[in-house]
Amino acid sequence: MTENLNEERIATFLDALASSAPTPGGGSVAGISGAMAAGLVSMVCSLTIGKKQFADIEEEVRGIHDRAEGLRRELQALAQADIEVFGRLSAAYKLPRTTDADAATRKAAIQQVTRSAAEVPLRIAQAAAALMPLCTSLANRCARLIVSDVGVAAILVRATVQSAILNVEINLAGLEDALFVRETRAQLEDLSVGLGEEAEGILAIVRQRINQ
Amino acid sequence: MTENLNEERIATFLDALASSAPTPGGGSVAGISGAMAAGLVSMVCSLTIGKKQFADIEEEVRGIHDRAEGLRRELQALAQADIEVFGRLSAAYKLPRTTDADAATRKAAIQQVTRSAAEVPLRIAQAAAALMPLCTSLANRCARLIVSDVGVAAILVRATVQSAILNVEINLAGLEDALFVRETRAQLEDLSVGLGEEAEGILAIVRQRINQ
Repeated sequence: MTENLNEERIATFLDALASSAPTPGGGSVAGISGAMAAGLVSMVCSLTIGKKQFADIEEEVRGIHDRAEGLRRELQALAQADIEVFGRLSAAYKLPRTTDADAATRKAAIQQVTRSAAEVPLRIAQAAAALMPLCTSLANRCARLIVSDVGVAAILVRATVQSAILNVEINLAGLEDALFVRETRAQLEDLSVGLGEEAEGILAIVRQRINQ
Repeated sequence: MTENLNEERIATFLDALASSAPTPGGGSVAGISGAMAAGLVSMVCSLTIGKKQFADIEEEVRGIHDRAEGLRRELQALAQADIEVFGRLSAAYKLPRTTDADAATRKAAIQQVTRSAAEVPLRIAQAAAALMPLCTSLANRCARLIVSDVGVAAILVRATVQSAILNVEINLAGLEDALFVRETRAQLEDLSVGLGEEAEGILAIVRQRINQ
């Protein structure tokens, strides 16, 4: 599976996901889920911009929209990158290991690509986490009718970060570079801290506005 | 937006989501997110079926696969249904209300379609919740290499149920049928109970297997 996700139909993506092919897998799903969160943020901004009653926040909302669209493009590209790095990993595992030299080359290749396989979902987690403050900015101020979309975005941001972290961790488990593993684990820790609370804070505002 | 989701490209879906068109919105996103969870469950089953070391659970895994594929089809159809019901709701709001009789007809139409608009995400939440026991069955027994995919599925199931519930609630807020509202709220409560604990239980197994 090396097709460009951007060229795939959504049902084709879901069919490919469900198949016995190992890609797309959980890493790509995390990327798409983050892209859907970004898309919801952009939609809420688009439905706010140009409305008279929101004129006082229009400039800020335009900024949020552009940031969300940038993160959406990044997340869609990373969903694709996850498929490609898996292909490189499979290729590395298939390298010959008949001689000691071959075995050493193969091992080095596997280590190098596994590191990339950890970095792609790490970047997915970072891009998704950057969406959360945008959800916070919108939750209190968008039209009440679309506040549930901000809530869904926040729920998906949390799910994307958590999913991406699992995909980083499964790759870290196979890495020998202890410094890289330690530094990456510290980054995962930073990404997790406060994520649930931030999402719950947004959801409390959303539920209160839904029922007001 | 009444195109069939199955005919849409994934990037087209994401572009449409991000646009100022109100559909697809949070309800469809919940449906797609649930369908991705189902697709991951199916993939894990497909990568287990036919492997000698999993021969003793093959029959059970075939059953899980078929159940997940049924729920995936249902979730994809519900993502589409959410777009269609929104179209009917917009049409109902545009009905004339110049005479008292017109206003009464319009109000009845809005109430009827708002009820459907609550029922579609309720069915999304129910279909997604039915995936969680399938994740539980697989977490301990699938190959270690793909256990993170079971974890991502469980994370997405929880996110889908929570997202769909927000979409039910925003529609219940506009409904006058107190009995329907009360009964639906009770169903939402049943869907929420234990959901987080079940997901955390799966994730504990997944993390333990990743790091073993």
